[in-house]
Amino acid sequence: MLRGRKSLNIVEYRTKNGPFKTLESVVNVPLLKHKSAVVVFNAILNPVKKKKVKIQLAKFIRPEVDRSWLDDANTIVSLVCGTNKVAWAHVDRGMAVLDWQQHDCPNFLKGTYMASAYLNDVSAVVSLLPSADFYIIEKPSISVQNTALFPIMAHMRTVEAMLFALLEPRNIPVETNIPPRVLNMMRTAVGRHFGLMVGESRTSGAQTVRQLMTESVTQKFPRINFPPDLLMKYRNSFQMGSSRRGGEQLCDALLQAVAFYELLSESS
Amino acid sequence: MLRGRKSLNIVEYRTKNGPFKTLESVVNVPLLKHKSAVVVFNAILNPVKKKKVKIQLAKFIRPEVDRSWLDDANTIVSLVCGTNKVAWAHVDRGMAVLDWQQHDCPNFLKGTYMASAYLNDVSAVVSLLPSADFYIIEKPSISVQNTALFPIMAHMRTVEAMLFALLEPRNIPVETNIPPRVLNMMRTAVGRHFGLMVGESRTSGAQTVRQLMTESVTQKFPRINFPPDLLMKYRNSFQMGSSRRGGEQLCDALLQAVAFYELLSESS
Repeated sequence: MLRGRKSLNIVEYRTKNGPFKTLESVVNVPLLKHKSAVVVFNAILNPVKKKKVKIQLAKFIRPEVDRSWLDDANTIVSLVCGTNKVAWAHVDRGMAVLDWQQHDCPNFLKGTYMASAYLNDVSAVVSLLPSADFYIIEKPSISVQNTALFPIMAHMRTVEAMLFALLEPRNIPVETNIPPRVLNMMRTAVGRHFGLMVGESRTSGAQTVRQLMTESVTQKFPRINFPPDLLMKYRNSFQMGSSRRGGEQLCDALLQAVAFYELLSESS
Repeated sequence: MLRGRKSLNIVEYRTKNGPFKTLESVVNVPLLKHKSAVVVFNAILNPVKKKKVKIQLAKFIRPEVDRSWLDDANTIVSLVCGTNKVAWAHVDRGMAVLDWQQHDCPNFLKGTYMASAYLNDVSAVVSLLPSADFYIIEKPSISVQNTALFPIMAHMRTVEAMLFALLEPRNIPVETNIPPRVLNMMRTAVGRHFGLMVGESRTSGAQTVRQLMTESVTQKFPRINFPPDLLMKYRNSFQMGSSRRGGEQLCDALLQAVAFYELLSESS
């Protein structure tokens, strides 16, 4: 509201004269005329709701696409890859979970890296995926600079590259205005949406997923609806503590799908 | 030829009696009867050509495939990717170069890594590739352990992964006994074949390629045949020294194709 010389003058005035005793005394501050004072008082007495910062699609979806394309999507498949599996959630725009599972990839990070072995695993996953308008692939936040995580990062890049190549329809003329079917979604954007960020890294989404599952049976308008068989299947998974069942990718795939629709409606 | 006690006895005999003075004196060595002596003399007088060590396909081609599949190949496309381009050579089993070129990939290693941007570049290359029985992709020898080269290595892996995914036919039932169409060939195996290795790394193949081009017009049975238009196009490229024209990938793609057929016939 007040910057530069005006705010400095206030500080100097209070240092010399002590706290303001009346509202009117504010106008004694050099430069701070009646008009400025009214603006400031008004802002304090009638705080306007902070204008929601318009979330830019580009902040969480890459490549940048026409927003109408995303609005038209009836279903998406959200994909998250781990070090030995790929998990996915198939969710429609009515926030119903249609499919939710993970598939083991025995060739990941095993022995000498072979592109052909990776392709076997990734193709097997792709053959199982439901058809959808968009395939949203988690873009992890591992940087090339982080040397300790090189092997993991090289692995992630390989799987991601194959998923992009296998899921995008082939032989589309470059000129046609057809949206890409495969998109990246920032892992950190999903983390922030659910309040899972601790500094730059993301904590487990298991607790959040358990809460979403509970709400889907206890609330009239839950954020997301699970069919009974999936609730049964996973109701005892994702427990904190003792037995880590390796459901992190499953959780992340689901949260990414929820965040996709919610961030999309927030940004409209 | 002689092992164990027999050869030890020879050494002991010569230590005691000095060098053999006549061929016959050899039979004085304990255990070394006439029969052994004849075998050894024969081997010295009529040396058999050293049996060529059978080069194992798995040493240069991955994944391991049925060798008959490779023998049946009429043409291959040999691919080598660089940091801003992909080069390829299309060569038939009669050692004629059918196509030889490279294509720029403006999104490689530019800005923040985006799988979708890479896919654009790699798809553009794939759409230009001639159809062939096999696509042979150079497997570089950069290790995950070499942290200094990590960005390059992550880049190479991404391009390689996309090439594998885009070139392999989709929707093939797993049970059918159909060979893979995309294979890796070890960069070091090609380097060794042409004597280009200096320690663990490979020197430029430009000189070798220039020589192959010269031989194709000066020799009756050259190792490889270039059509006149390709000879014209590249005759002044690949010069050593002053102007590096960035033809390394072009050279490497050609050498890989030649090495593929030559190593295949050597290993038969």
